[in-house]
Amino acid sequence: MYITQGLKRAVQTNGRGIATMDGERKRTWAEFRERVAKLAGALQSLGLRDGGRVAILALNSDRYLEINYAVPWAGGIIIPLNTRLAPTELIFMLNDSDAEILIVDETFAAMLPAFAGKLNTVKQYIYAGDNAAPTGTVNYEQILAAHSAMPDTERGGDEVAGIFYTGGTTGRAKGVMLTHNNLVANAINLVIGLKITDESVYLHAAPMFHLADGCGIVSVTLMGGTHIFIPRFDPSTALETIQRTKVTHCILVPTMLNMVASNPQSKQYDLSSFRVLGYGASPMPEALMIRAKAVFSNCEFVQAYGMTEVSAVATFLDDKYHMFEGPYAQKVSSAGRPIYNIEIKVVDPDDTELPRGVVGEIIVRGPTLMKGYWNRPEETAHALRNGWMHTGDAGYMDEDGFLFLVDRYKDMIKSGGENVFSIEVENAIYQHPSVSMCAVIGIPDEKWGETVHAIVVPKPDQTVTEQAIIQHCRELIAGYKCPRSVEFRQEALPISGAGKIMKAKLREPYWQGRDRRIA
Amino acid sequence: MYITQGLKRAVQTNGRGIATMDGERKRTWAEFRERVAKLAGALQSLGLRDGGRVAILALNSDRYLEINYAVPWAGGIIIPLNTRLAPTELIFMLNDSDAEILIVDETFAAMLPAFAGKLNTVKQYIYAGDNAAPTGTVNYEQILAAHSAMPDTERGGDEVAGIFYTGGTTGRAKGVMLTHNNLVANAINLVIGLKITDESVYLHAAPMFHLADGCGIVSVTLMGGTHIFIPRFDPSTALETIQRTKVTHCILVPTMLNMVASNPQSKQYDLSSFRVLGYGASPMPEALMIRAKAVFSNCEFVQAYGMTEVSAVATFLDDKYHMFEGPYAQKVSSAGRPIYNIEIKVVDPDDTELPRGVVGEIIVRGPTLMKGYWNRPEETAHALRNGWMHTGDAGYMDEDGFLFLVDRYKDMIKSGGENVFSIEVENAIYQHPSVSMCAVIGIPDEKWGETVHAIVVPKPDQTVTEQAIIQHCRELIAGYKCPRSVEFRQEALPISGAGKIMKAKLREPYWQGRDRRIA
Repeated sequence: MYITQGLKRAVQTNGRGIATMDGERKRTWAEFRERVAKLAGALQSLGLRDGGRVAILALNSDRYLEINYAVPWAGGIIIPLNTRLAPTELIFMLNDSDAEILIVDETFAAMLPAFAGKLNTVKQYIYAGDNAAPTGTVNYEQILAAHSAMPDTERGGDEVAGIFYTGGTTGRAKGVMLTHNNLVANAINLVIGLKITDESVYLHAAPMFHLADGCGIVSVTLMGGTHIFIPRFDPSTALETIQRTKVTHCILVPTMLNMVASNPQSKQYDLSSFRVLGYGASPMPEALMIRAKAVFSNCEFVQAYGMTEVSAVATFLDDKYHMFEGPYAQKVSSAGRPIYNIEIKVVDPDDTELPRGVVGEIIVRGPTLMKGYWNRPEETAHALRNGWMHTGDAGYMDEDGFLFLVDRYKDMIKSGGENVFSIEVENAIYQHPSVSMCAVIGIPDEKWGETVHAIVVPKPDQTVTEQAIIQHCRELIAGYKCPRSVEFRQEALPISGAGKIMKAKLREPYWQGRDRRIA
Repeated sequence: MYITQGLKRAVQTNGRGIATMDGERKRTWAEFRERVAKLAGALQSLGLRDGGRVAILALNSDRYLEINYAVPWAGGIIIPLNTRLAPTELIFMLNDSDAEILIVDETFAAMLPAFAGKLNTVKQYIYAGDNAAPTGTVNYEQILAAHSAMPDTERGGDEVAGIFYTGGTTGRAKGVMLTHNNLVANAINLVIGLKITDESVYLHAAPMFHLADGCGIVSVTLMGGTHIFIPRFDPSTALETIQRTKVTHCILVPTMLNMVASNPQSKQYDLSSFRVLGYGASPMPEALMIRAKAVFSNCEFVQAYGMTEVSAVATFLDDKYHMFEGPYAQKVSSAGRPIYNIEIKVVDPDDTELPRGVVGEIIVRGPTLMKGYWNRPEETAHALRNGWMHTGDAGYMDEDGFLFLVDRYKDMIKSGGENVFSIEVENAIYQHPSVSMCAVIGIPDEKWGETVHAIVVPKPDQTVTEQAIIQHCRELIAGYKCPRSVEFRQEALPISGAGKIMKAKLREPYWQGRDRRIA
């Protein structure tokens, strides 16, 4: 299997259908392929050879999608860079991956001076914006127009299609190598789980560099659907775009969904076209889900759990399990069940499978398993030992195969010999009517090792006291799980490129000079 | 990927759900796995080693399904034999494949004496019936009970999972080697196209030895659905079983569908549980489809086109295109569009792709492409030249990617320099209200090379004349396509194991001593 096959299928089955709509710019699948084949020719003329690496640092756009197909069409490997990182982090990734070509848009062209003299392997810079190309870069539209369409190299199978950096928020970033087979197998699973068809209209609202949204790139193209873009996530723009372009599908992280669901204007939009909302990257508290269902009343919710190392998705929680009453009420707080050709086990430290209901490490196997970490043979061997991806996530499976993520090991709070799962505390806090956003972390304590600390952002124009939050929690969860201290902030909490609240950053001020031991 | 992964997933996600219902016999997925693991142990105790071959000659049953999982669980390769063949043909296949173990049920135990002394490699015989095991065979239930559950060998990936004989009706039968990856990739495509879920109840009505029904084995198991069996196809039994067990899914060949749709009692059954009917193995005339829709009013129709060499399915015609009016009216006579990760081209004899609308040979590529023909390197190289399966089918593709099978090359009638596609003539004849079944063939003619000849089976208690049939056709199709002669029969036309009318057999008496040249 190979990624560009999906594009060719889209042209074969829906050549006159709309491939991309970016603002006022609309292109058919036949036009899209023509541009991809020309851009591929341009990339080769800039020196791209089989397996060469092309990095992209840009906001969402139709060009981002074109690049995602032109690079494999030309035989290259794509490296989508996290747009929220600092120059030093990006320089590390560009050098670590031996990137040869770097593509930037108007937003990130401004960062080029910060890279000057620090990139060891990048030889060519492409400017994919609408302004004049900065010195030292070639203009995307100009080189595209200057080249004729080249035939597809049909690179594929177990060859690497992309390198996706992960773990940038803590520790040294690692490049996850995903093959063509990996990405197509994942896309087919998405087609099933999110019911993607040739009539789907997919909104790229989450950043396209992240594989959560990247799933939509391959799966929607394969089915010949339509891609819609907004440059970066913003609740009002997302809502307006859904209404205007009749979006049917979108994948969001819970934080974004929260922003949409909490937007006071959300009820003013006609969102009736919306069919399926995939959400994931972290579990969603129940209180938030109730809000989201009120906004997207006509749509199915599907939770996905996974990670870059398994090409994104390992489990789906289908819409029918998003119920708070009835026979499935226990399932809604799970991450769902292993998808189709994916195997999941919950194991002890010796990789022995644990009985249902017992918490252990989640391990995953299947056709979407990464080839490895780029230039990290030891870390690859460790992560993929015994042929399974060791996720580092803790969870248990129930008798019906539903996987419950109790927490990331590192997010578990160890207080006086008890383990407190922060998601459980957060879920309680989210049920307070005045809370807009919250995070629960462990902070150092002489007596207990750690104590439970909550950071809360109240809704605009609402006030709430520390005592009210703690009292509210006492009514919902065991005493030892309740926060010992609550801190209030007016601004939103810091969010990673993957849309997760950056707890490491929240923890930092409390742990300076101390060693926080994690399981 | 590997076949038994699907079984383990069914147990993990639906262990207490019903796996099989065969008459009064019901088993859960947990029970089914236990029996499979024990039978695998028994097979190993009978000498089965990695890659060893186990043939099965039996009617449909829950044991047929168990064998389909126990053989790969034990590391073996399964050979499902066509139950309609003569002993000499079966002996050829058993010897050609070097089968080591042969499993028969009560129906086919009677054939064992005819095999005596003629099988070169078979060392063990298993009797999977409910009577006393014949001499020289071991009893299925007894050896199963005598062994403890063995761990899955997890044989998989590009290793051969099964050998499926094809082409038995004309020429020398060839064993198609399909790998674990082939069969799982095909099953996942089926899950999408036929909307198979954990709530699906699948009726094995077509013979399980044939891959058309075999698709249901892997896909329904993977999703943790329920399998229902009838020993052999019979319209009344099928209708009664659908009503009684609330069947949701079934795959039939058009001839079977015709028998169900034409059954005068079909309207007396409650078929409201029925959701999706997959049909295929040959195109279906429109008149027949209208009858079928009247019987299965609550259900979606999905046509599949493919062949054993591509693990069964290459295209789907979704239900929404089964319309005789409106924007899609042109599509209903097509075989649908290439599915997901499958590539299809229509090419000239040099494998150059032809423009849309031009008839040529259909070639197919993708993860479901066979590993090759067993022990036939030359025929494999020829069929798979340039990495594509050359189907030998003629067709064209329209601008929307719909594939129209004009006819098998060999079924095309060459009359006076014109090519007549027999399906088109058959479709016209089927629209006559007195016709139950028909076939159109070319018969030798001094002047024209061939002329169009129709063989017609009228409905019971109805009569129709040759002149009436020809006149009826003149109103629907061009004069040169109309039959020059019509022959009437009272008995059903001969049907192959795959459910196709055996035109070679119908042609035979007309062509004795002559050479019919085909494209």
